[in-house]
Amino acid sequence: MKLYDFTAAPNPKRVRMFLAEKGLETACVQVNIREREQFTDAFQRINPFSVVPVLELDDGTRIGESVAICRYIEETHPEPALMGTDALDKALVEMWQRRVELNGFLMVGEAVRNAEPRFEGRALPGTSGGVPQIPALVERGKAAALRLFDKLDNQLSANEFVAGPRFTIADITLFVTVWFAPRANLGVPDACTNLKRWHAAVAARPSAEA
Amino acid sequence: MKLYDFTAAPNPKRVRMFLAEKGLETACVQVNIREREQFTDAFQRINPFSVVPVLELDDGTRIGESVAICRYIEETHPEPALMGTDALDKALVEMWQRRVELNGFLMVGEAVRNAEPRFEGRALPGTSGGVPQIPALVERGKAAALRLFDKLDNQLSANEFVAGPRFTIADITLFVTVWFAPRANLGVPDACTNLKRWHAAVAARPSAEA
Repeated sequence: MKLYDFTAAPNPKRVRMFLAEKGLETACVQVNIREREQFTDAFQRINPFSVVPVLELDDGTRIGESVAICRYIEETHPEPALMGTDALDKALVEMWQRRVELNGFLMVGEAVRNAEPRFEGRALPGTSGGVPQIPALVERGKAAALRLFDKLDNQLSANEFVAGPRFTIADITLFVTVWFAPRANLGVPDACTNLKRWHAAVAARPSAEA
Repeated sequence: MKLYDFTAAPNPKRVRMFLAEKGLETACVQVNIREREQFTDAFQRINPFSVVPVLELDDGTRIGESVAICRYIEETHPEPALMGTDALDKALVEMWQRRVELNGFLMVGEAVRNAEPRFEGRALPGTSGGVPQIPALVERGKAAALRLFDKLDNQLSANEFVAGPRFTIADITLFVTVWFAPRANLGVPDACTNLKRWHAAVAARPSAEA
Protein backbone atom coordinates (compact mmCIF):
# COMPACT_ATOMS: atom_id res chain seq x y z
CA MET A 1 0.00 0.00 0.00
CA LYS A 2 1.31 3.48 -0.76
CA LEU A 3 -0.15 6.94 -0.46
CA TYR A 4 0.31 9.65 -3.06
CA ASP A 5 0.62 12.57 -0.71
CA PHE A 6 1.57 16.22 -0.42
CA THR A 7 2.51 17.18 3.11
CA ALA A 8 1.35 20.80 3.00
CA ALA A 9 -2.12 20.10 1.59
CA PRO A 10 -5.17 19.58 3.79
CA ASN A 11 -6.77 16.54 2.14
CA PRO A 12 -3.76 14.23 2.44
CA LYS A 13 -3.40 15.27 6.08
CA ARG A 14 -6.89 13.91 6.76
CA VAL A 15 -5.77 10.49 5.54
CA ARG A 16 -2.44 10.62 7.40
CA MET A 17 -4.25 11.43 10.66
CA PHE A 18 -6.71 8.62 10.02
CA LEU A 19 -3.87 6.14 9.43
CA ALA A 20 -2.08 7.36 12.57
CA GLU A 21 -5.22 6.89 14.69
CA LYS A 22 -5.41 3.32 13.39
CA GLY A 23 -1.74 2.77 14.28
CA LEU A 24 -0.90 2.14 10.63
CA GLU A 25 2.05 3.29 8.61
CA THR A 26 2.26 3.40 4.86
CA ALA A 27 4.80 4.49 2.29
CA CYS A 28 4.17 8.04 1.07
CA VAL A 29 5.09 9.35 -2.36
CA GLN A 30 5.18 13.14 -2.50
CA VAL A 31 3.36 14.68 -5.46
CA ASN A 32 4.52 18.27 -5.53
CA ILE A 33 1.28 20.02 -6.39
CA ARG A 34 2.99 23.41 -6.05
CA GLU A 35 5.11 22.35 -9.03
CA ARG A 36 1.95 21.07 -10.79
CA GLU A 37 3.05 17.44 -10.74
CA GLN A 38 -0.63 16.42 -10.50
CA PHE A 39 -1.01 17.45 -14.13
CA THR A 40 1.78 15.29 -15.56
CA ASP A 41 0.76 12.42 -17.83
CA ALA A 42 2.17 10.02 -15.25
CA PHE A 43 -0.09 11.33 -12.49
CA GLN A 44 -3.11 11.64 -14.79
CA ARG A 45 -2.92 7.87 -15.16
CA ILE A 46 -2.92 7.55 -11.36
CA ASN A 47 -5.81 9.98 -10.87
CA PRO A 48 -7.56 11.55 -13.86
CA PHE A 49 -9.13 14.04 -11.44
CA SER A 50 -5.64 15.47 -10.72
CA VAL A 51 -5.87 15.66 -6.96
CA VAL A 52 -4.12 14.07 -4.00
CA PRO A 53 -4.33 11.91 -1.96
CA VAL A 54 -4.58 8.60 -3.78
CA LEU A 55 -4.10 5.25 -2.06
CA GLU A 56 -2.50 2.58 -4.24
CA LEU A 57 -2.99 -1.02 -3.15
CA ASP A 58 -0.38 -3.71 -3.69
CA ASP A 59 -2.26 -5.03 -6.74
CA GLY A 60 -2.17 -1.55 -8.32
CA THR A 61 -5.80 -0.60 -7.57
CA ARG A 62 -6.09 3.09 -6.83
CA ILE A 63 -8.56 4.81 -4.53
CA GLY A 64 -9.01 8.57 -4.75
CA GLU A 65 -10.90 10.99 -2.47
CA SER A 66 -9.81 11.29 1.16
CA VAL A 67 -12.99 10.00 2.75
CA ALA A 68 -13.16 7.04 0.35
CA ILE A 69 -9.59 6.14 1.30
CA CYS A 70 -10.57 6.38 4.97
CA ARG A 71 -13.54 4.08 4.24
CA TYR A 72 -11.19 1.45 2.81
CA ILE A 73 -8.92 1.68 5.84
CA GLU A 74 -11.91 1.54 8.22
CA GLU A 75 -13.31 -1.57 6.53
CA THR A 76 -9.98 -3.37 6.47
CA HIS A 77 -8.82 -2.21 9.93
CA PRO A 78 -12.01 -1.73 11.98
CA GLU A 79 -10.35 -0.89 15.31
CA PRO A 80 -10.56 1.69 16.70
CA ALA A 81 -13.78 2.59 14.87
CA LEU A 82 -13.44 6.08 13.40
CA MET A 83 -16.53 6.03 11.17
CA GLY A 84 -19.10 4.76 13.64
CA THR A 85 -20.00 1.47 15.27
CA ASP A 86 -23.59 0.40 14.55
CA ALA A 87 -25.96 1.62 11.80
CA LEU A 88 -27.14 4.70 13.66
CA ASP A 89 -23.69 5.67 14.90
CA LYS A 90 -22.23 5.31 11.39
CA ALA A 91 -24.97 7.61 10.08
CA LEU A 92 -24.44 10.21 12.80
CA VAL A 93 -20.67 10.22 12.32
CA GLU A 94 -21.20 10.68 8.58
CA MET A 95 -23.71 13.47 9.26
CA TRP A 96 -21.19 15.37 11.37
CA GLN A 97 -18.31 14.68 9.02
CA ARG A 98 -20.34 16.12 6.17
CA ARG A 99 -21.57 19.12 8.14
CA VAL A 100 -17.96 19.99 8.97
CA GLU A 101 -16.75 19.32 5.45
CA LEU A 102 -19.46 21.19 3.55
CA ASN A 103 -19.74 24.17 5.89
CA GLY A 104 -16.14 24.45 7.04
CA PHE A 105 -13.45 22.44 5.31
CA LEU A 106 -14.59 23.28 1.77
CA MET A 107 -15.31 26.90 2.72
CA VAL A 108 -11.83 27.47 4.10
CA GLY A 109 -10.40 25.77 1.03
CA GLU A 110 -12.34 28.17 -1.14
CA ALA A 111 -11.09 31.16 0.87
CA VAL A 112 -7.49 30.00 0.42
CA ARG A 113 -7.70 29.08 -3.27
CA ASN A 114 -9.35 32.36 -4.19
CA ALA A 115 -6.78 34.45 -2.32
CA GLU A 116 -3.32 32.92 -2.74
CA PRO A 117 -1.50 34.03 -5.93
CA ARG A 118 -0.31 30.47 -6.55
CA PHE A 119 -3.90 29.46 -7.42
CA GLU A 120 -4.43 32.21 -9.96
CA GLY A 121 -6.41 30.81 -12.89
CA ARG A 122 -7.00 27.45 -11.18
CA ALA A 123 -9.27 28.29 -8.31
CA LEU A 124 -11.00 24.91 -8.21
CA PRO A 125 -9.19 21.73 -7.13
CA GLY A 126 -7.93 19.63 -10.02
CA THR A 127 -7.96 22.47 -12.55
CA SER A 128 -4.81 23.63 -14.34
CA GLY A 129 -6.20 26.83 -15.85
CA GLY A 130 -9.29 28.65 -17.02
CA VAL A 131 -10.82 28.98 -13.56
CA PRO A 132 -10.33 32.58 -12.39
CA GLN A 133 -10.20 33.44 -8.73
CA ILE A 134 -13.32 35.12 -7.36
CA PRO A 135 -12.25 37.48 -4.58
CA ALA A 136 -15.74 37.55 -3.01
CA LEU A 137 -15.32 33.87 -2.10
CA VAL A 138 -12.60 34.72 0.40
CA GLU A 139 -14.93 36.57 2.76
CA ARG A 140 -17.83 34.23 2.01
CA GLY A 141 -15.69 31.24 2.97
CA LYS A 142 -14.40 32.77 6.16
CA ALA A 143 -17.86 33.89 7.28
CA ALA A 144 -19.25 30.41 6.61
CA ALA A 145 -16.49 28.78 8.66
CA LEU A 146 -17.20 31.16 11.54
CA ARG A 147 -20.89 30.25 11.45
CA LEU A 148 -19.89 26.59 11.62
CA PHE A 149 -17.50 27.21 14.51
CA ASP A 150 -20.39 28.75 16.45
CA LYS A 151 -22.64 25.76 15.82
CA LEU A 152 -19.85 23.34 16.73
CA ASP A 153 -19.11 25.26 19.91
CA ASN A 154 -22.68 24.50 20.90
CA GLN A 155 -22.39 20.83 19.92
CA LEU A 156 -19.13 20.53 21.88
CA SER A 157 -20.70 22.04 24.99
CA ALA A 158 -22.48 18.69 25.50
CA ASN A 159 -20.10 16.31 23.73
CA GLU A 160 -16.43 15.49 24.16
CA PHE A 161 -16.01 15.07 20.41
CA VAL A 162 -17.84 16.38 17.35
CA ALA A 163 -20.02 13.31 16.82
CA GLY A 164 -20.38 12.33 20.48
CA PRO A 165 -18.29 10.55 23.10
CA ARG A 166 -15.72 9.03 20.72
CA PHE A 167 -13.03 10.49 18.47
CA THR A 168 -14.07 10.03 14.81
CA ILE A 169 -13.35 11.13 11.27
CA ALA A 170 -15.53 14.20 11.96
CA ASP A 171 -12.88 15.37 14.43
CA ILE A 172 -10.17 14.81 11.84
CA THR A 173 -12.01 16.90 9.24
CA LEU A 174 -12.54 19.68 11.77
CA PHE A 175 -8.97 19.54 13.07
CA VAL A 176 -7.57 19.84 9.54
CA THR A 177 -9.99 22.70 8.86
CA VAL A 178 -8.61 24.60 11.85
CA TRP A 179 -5.06 23.55 10.90
CA PHE A 180 -5.15 25.30 7.53
CA ALA A 181 -7.54 28.13 8.44
CA PRO A 182 -4.59 30.47 9.20
CA ARG A 183 -3.84 30.46 5.46
CA ALA A 184 -7.15 32.35 5.18
CA ASN A 185 -6.20 34.53 8.18
CA LEU A 186 -8.80 32.68 10.18
CA GLY A 187 -8.72 31.14 13.63
CA VAL A 188 -11.12 29.82 16.23
CA PRO A 189 -12.66 32.84 18.02
CA ASP A 190 -11.89 33.10 21.75
CA ALA A 191 -15.62 33.09 22.47
CA CYS A 192 -15.81 29.48 21.23
CA THR A 193 -14.52 28.07 24.51
CA ASN A 194 -15.80 24.53 23.92
CA LEU A 195 -14.25 24.41 20.49
CA LYS A 196 -10.98 25.70 21.98
CA ARG A 197 -11.06 22.98 24.66
CA TRP A 198 -11.74 20.37 21.98
CA HIS A 199 -8.93 21.72 19.80
CA ALA A 200 -6.37 21.57 22.58
CA ALA A 201 -7.35 17.96 23.30
CA VAL A 202 -7.08 16.88 19.66
CA ALA A 203 -3.83 18.79 19.14
CA ALA A 204 -2.33 16.74 21.98
CA ARG A 205 -3.01 13.43 20.21
CA PRO A 206 0.02 11.97 18.42
CA SER A 207 -1.98 11.83 15.16
CA ALA A 208 -2.16 15.63 15.05
CA GLU A 209 1.46 15.68 13.86
CA ALA A 210 0.85 13.18 11.06
CA MET B 1 -39.57 6.50 10.33
CA LYS B 2 -40.41 9.76 8.55
CA LEU B 3 -38.57 11.98 6.14
CA TYR B 4 -38.59 15.75 6.29
CA ASP B 5 -38.67 16.42 2.60
CA PHE B 6 -39.20 19.06 -0.06
CA THR B 7 -40.18 17.56 -3.39
CA ALA B 8 -38.60 20.20 -5.64
CA ALA B 9 -35.18 20.21 -3.97
CA PRO B 10 -32.31 18.03 -5.16
CA ASN B 11 -31.01 16.65 -1.85
CA PRO B 12 -34.29 15.09 -0.69
CA LYS B 13 -34.66 13.51 -4.13
CA ARG B 14 -31.39 11.65 -3.59
CA VAL B 15 -32.86 10.03 -0.48
CA ARG B 16 -36.22 9.29 -2.10
CA MET B 17 -34.47 7.55 -5.01
CA PHE B 18 -32.32 5.59 -2.57
CA LEU B 19 -35.40 4.45 -0.64
CA ALA B 20 -37.17 3.50 -3.88
CA GLU B 21 -34.20 1.41 -5.03
CA LYS B 22 -34.39 -0.43 -1.70
CA GLY B 23 -38.10 -0.98 -2.17
CA LEU B 24 -38.86 1.04 0.95
CA GLU B 25 -41.57 3.55 1.60
CA THR B 26 -41.59 6.13 4.36
CA ALA B 27 -43.88 8.91 5.45
CA CYS B 28 -42.79 12.29 4.06
CA VAL B 29 -43.39 15.63 5.75
CA GLN B 30 -43.04 18.55 3.36
CA VAL B 31 -40.93 21.43 4.66
CA ASN B 32 -41.66 24.29 2.31
CA ILE B 33 -38.21 25.78 1.94
CA ARG B 34 -39.53 28.29 -0.62
CA GLU B 35 -41.63 29.70 2.23
CA ARG B 36 -38.56 29.55 4.53
CA GLU B 37 -40.09 26.92 6.83
CA GLN B 38 -36.58 25.58 7.48
CA PHE B 39 -35.90 28.68 9.56
CA THR B 40 -38.85 28.34 11.93
CA ASP B 41 -38.09 27.57 15.57
CA ALA B 42 -39.86 24.24 15.16
CA PHE B 43 -37.60 23.14 12.30
CA GLN B 44 -34.46 24.54 13.97
CA ARG B 45 -35.08 21.99 16.72
CA ILE B 46 -35.28 19.27 14.07
CA ASN B 47 -32.16 20.41 12.22
CA PRO B 48 -30.11 23.34 13.53
CA PHE B 49 -28.37 23.43 10.14
CA SER B 50 -31.70 24.44 8.51
CA VAL B 51 -31.60 22.07 5.56
CA VAL B 52 -33.65 19.15 4.29
CA PRO B 53 -33.78 16.18 4.19
CA VAL B 54 -33.83 14.88 7.75
CA LEU B 55 -34.77 11.31 8.62
CA GLU B 56 -36.56 10.94 11.95
CA LEU B 57 -36.56 7.48 13.51
CA ASP B 58 -39.44 6.13 15.57
CA ASP B 59 -37.59 6.93 18.81
CA GLY B 60 -37.21 10.57 17.71
CA THR B 61 -33.54 10.38 16.69
CA ARG B 62 -32.85 12.61 13.72
CA ILE B 63 -30.31 12.08 10.97
CA GLY B 64 -29.40 14.97 8.70
CA GLU B 65 -27.37 15.08 5.47
CA SER B 66 -28.56 13.03 2.49
CA VAL B 67 -25.62 10.67 2.28
CA ALA B 68 -25.70 10.02 6.03
CA ILE B 69 -29.38 9.13 5.75
CA CYS B 70 -28.53 6.79 2.88
CA ARG B 71 -25.85 5.21 5.05
CA TYR B 72 -28.39 4.45 7.76
CA ILE B 73 -30.75 2.89 5.23
CA GLU B 74 -27.91 0.88 3.66
CA GLU B 75 -26.81 -0.47 7.03
CA THR B 76 -30.32 -1.40 8.12
CA HIS B 77 -31.48 -2.67 4.69
CA PRO B 78 -28.35 -4.01 2.98
CA GLU B 79 -30.03 -5.41 -0.15
CA PRO B 80 -29.59 -4.40 -2.89
CA ALA B 81 -26.21 -2.91 -1.95
CA LEU B 82 -26.09 0.71 -3.15
CA MET B 83 -22.93 1.77 -1.29
CA GLY B 84 -20.63 -1.10 -2.22
CA THR B 85 -20.19 -4.73 -1.26
CA ASP B 86 -16.72 -5.46 0.15
CA ALA B 87 -14.12 -3.03 1.52
CA LEU B 88 -12.67 -2.09 -1.85
CA ASP B 89 -16.04 -1.77 -3.57
CA LYS B 90 -17.36 0.42 -0.74
CA ALA B 91 -14.34 2.68 -1.16
CA LEU B 92 -14.67 2.90 -4.93
CA VAL B 93 -18.40 3.65 -4.75
CA GLU B 94 -17.65 6.39 -2.20
CA MET B 95 -14.88 7.73 -4.44
CA TRP B 96 -17.24 8.06 -7.40
CA GLN B 97 -20.08 9.41 -5.28
CA ARG B 98 -17.77 12.12 -3.99
CA ARG B 99 -16.29 12.92 -7.40
CA VAL B 100 -19.81 13.45 -8.76
CA GLU B 101 -20.93 15.40 -5.71
CA LEU B 102 -17.94 17.72 -5.40
CA ASN B 103 -17.41 18.38 -9.10
CA GLY B 104 -21.01 18.25 -10.32
CA PHE B 105 -23.84 18.20 -7.81
CA LEU B 106 -22.46 21.01 -5.64
CA MET B 107 -21.36 23.01 -8.69
CA VAL B 108 -24.81 22.94 -10.28
CA GLY B 109 -26.29 23.85 -6.91
CA GLU B 110 -23.99 26.84 -6.76
CA ALA B 111 -24.97 27.91 -10.28
CA VAL B 112 -28.66 27.75 -9.35
CA ARG B 113 -28.39 29.45 -5.96
CA ASN B 114 -26.34 32.30 -7.35
CA ALA B 115 -28.72 32.94 -10.25
CA GLU B 116 -32.32 32.48 -9.08
CA PRO B 117 -33.85 35.60 -7.48
CA ARG B 118 -35.41 33.51 -4.71
CA PHE B 119 -31.93 32.90 -3.25
CA GLU B 120 -30.97 36.56 -3.12
CA GLY B 121 -29.06 37.21 0.10
CA ARG B 122 -28.93 33.51 1.04
CA ALA B 123 -26.71 31.99 -1.58
CA LEU B 124 -25.40 29.20 0.65
CA PRO B 125 -27.60 26.33 1.84
CA GLY B 126 -28.97 26.81 5.35
CA THR B 127 -28.51 30.59 5.39
CA SER B 128 -31.42 32.98 5.84
CA GLY B 129 -29.60 36.20 4.94
CA GLY B 130 -26.27 37.98 4.76
CA VAL B 131 -24.86 35.77 2.00
CA PRO B 132 -24.97 37.73 -1.26
CA GLN B 133 -25.17 35.98 -4.60
CA ILE B 134 -21.94 35.97 -6.59
CA PRO B 135 -22.84 36.02 -10.29
CA ALA B 136 -19.46 34.66 -11.36
CA LEU B 137 -20.33 31.37 -9.65
CA VAL B 138 -23.03 30.68 -12.22
CA GLU B 139 -20.59 30.25 -15.09
CA ARG B 140 -17.98 28.64 -12.85
CA GLY B 141 -20.48 26.03 -11.72
CA LYS B 142 -21.74 25.23 -15.19
CA ALA B 143 -18.23 24.92 -16.61
CA ALA B 144 -17.22 22.61 -13.75
CA ALA B 145 -20.23 20.37 -14.36
CA LEU B 146 -19.38 20.17 -18.06
CA ARG B 147 -15.81 19.13 -17.23
CA LEU B 148 -17.23 16.42 -14.99
CA PHE B 149 -19.68 15.24 -17.69
CA ASP B 150 -16.70 14.78 -20.03
CA LYS B 151 -14.80 12.70 -17.50
CA LEU B 152 -17.88 10.63 -16.71
CA ASP B 153 -18.52 10.06 -20.41
CA ASN B 154 -15.11 8.45 -20.50
CA GLN B 155 -15.79 6.39 -17.36
CA LEU B 156 -19.14 5.25 -18.78
CA SER B 157 -17.53 4.14 -22.05
CA ALA B 158 -16.17 1.12 -20.16
CA ASN B 159 -18.74 0.79 -17.35
CA GLU B 160 -22.49 0.32 -17.30
CA PHE B 161 -22.80 2.52 -14.23
CA VAL B 162 -20.70 5.28 -12.70
CA ALA B 163 -18.86 3.08 -10.19
CA GLY B 164 -18.77 -0.08 -12.30
CA PRO B 165 -21.17 -2.88 -13.18
CA ARG B 166 -23.80 -2.16 -10.51
CA PHE B 167 -26.19 0.71 -9.90
CA THR B 168 -25.07 2.65 -6.79
CA ILE B 169 -25.49 5.88 -4.87
CA ALA B 170 -23.01 7.45 -7.31
CA ASP B 171 -25.61 7.01 -10.06
CA ILE B 172 -28.25 8.61 -7.86
CA THR B 173 -26.08 11.66 -7.19
CA LEU B 174 -25.34 12.00 -10.91
CA PHE B 175 -28.95 11.47 -11.95
CA VAL B 176 -30.15 14.16 -9.55
CA THR B 177 -27.39 16.47 -10.79
CA VAL B 178 -28.67 16.08 -14.36
CA TRP B 179 -32.28 16.34 -13.11
CA PHE B 180 -31.83 19.84 -11.71
CA ALA B 181 -29.17 21.06 -14.16
CA PRO B 182 -31.87 22.66 -16.40
CA ARG B 183 -32.44 25.19 -13.60
CA ALA B 184 -28.94 26.39 -14.49
CA ASN B 185 -29.75 26.16 -18.23
CA LEU B 186 -27.46 23.17 -18.41
CA GLY B 187 -27.87 19.77 -20.00
CA VAL B 188 -25.75 16.81 -20.99
CA PRO B 189 -23.96 17.70 -24.23
CA ASP B 190 -24.86 15.54 -27.25
CA ALA B 191 -21.19 14.64 -27.62
CA CYS B 192 -21.37 12.73 -24.31
CA THR B 193 -22.94 9.67 -25.92
CA ASN B 194 -22.06 7.28 -23.10
CA LEU B 195 -23.47 9.62 -20.50
CA LYS B 196 -26.63 9.99 -22.62
CA ARG B 197 -26.98 6.19 -22.85
CA TRP B 198 -26.49 5.92 -19.06
CA HIS B 199 -29.03 8.69 -18.43
CA ALA B 200 -31.71 7.03 -20.56
CA ALA B 201 -31.18 3.76 -18.68
CA VAL B 202 -31.43 5.37 -15.23
CA ALA B 203 -34.40 7.52 -16.23
CA ALA B 204 -36.24 4.30 -17.11
CA ARG B 205 -35.88 2.92 -13.57
CA PRO B 206 -38.97 3.34 -11.41
CA SER B 207 -36.87 5.13 -8.76
CA ALA B 208 -36.25 8.03 -11.17
CA GLU B 209 -39.78 9.27 -10.46
CA ALA B 210 -39.34 9.17 -6.69
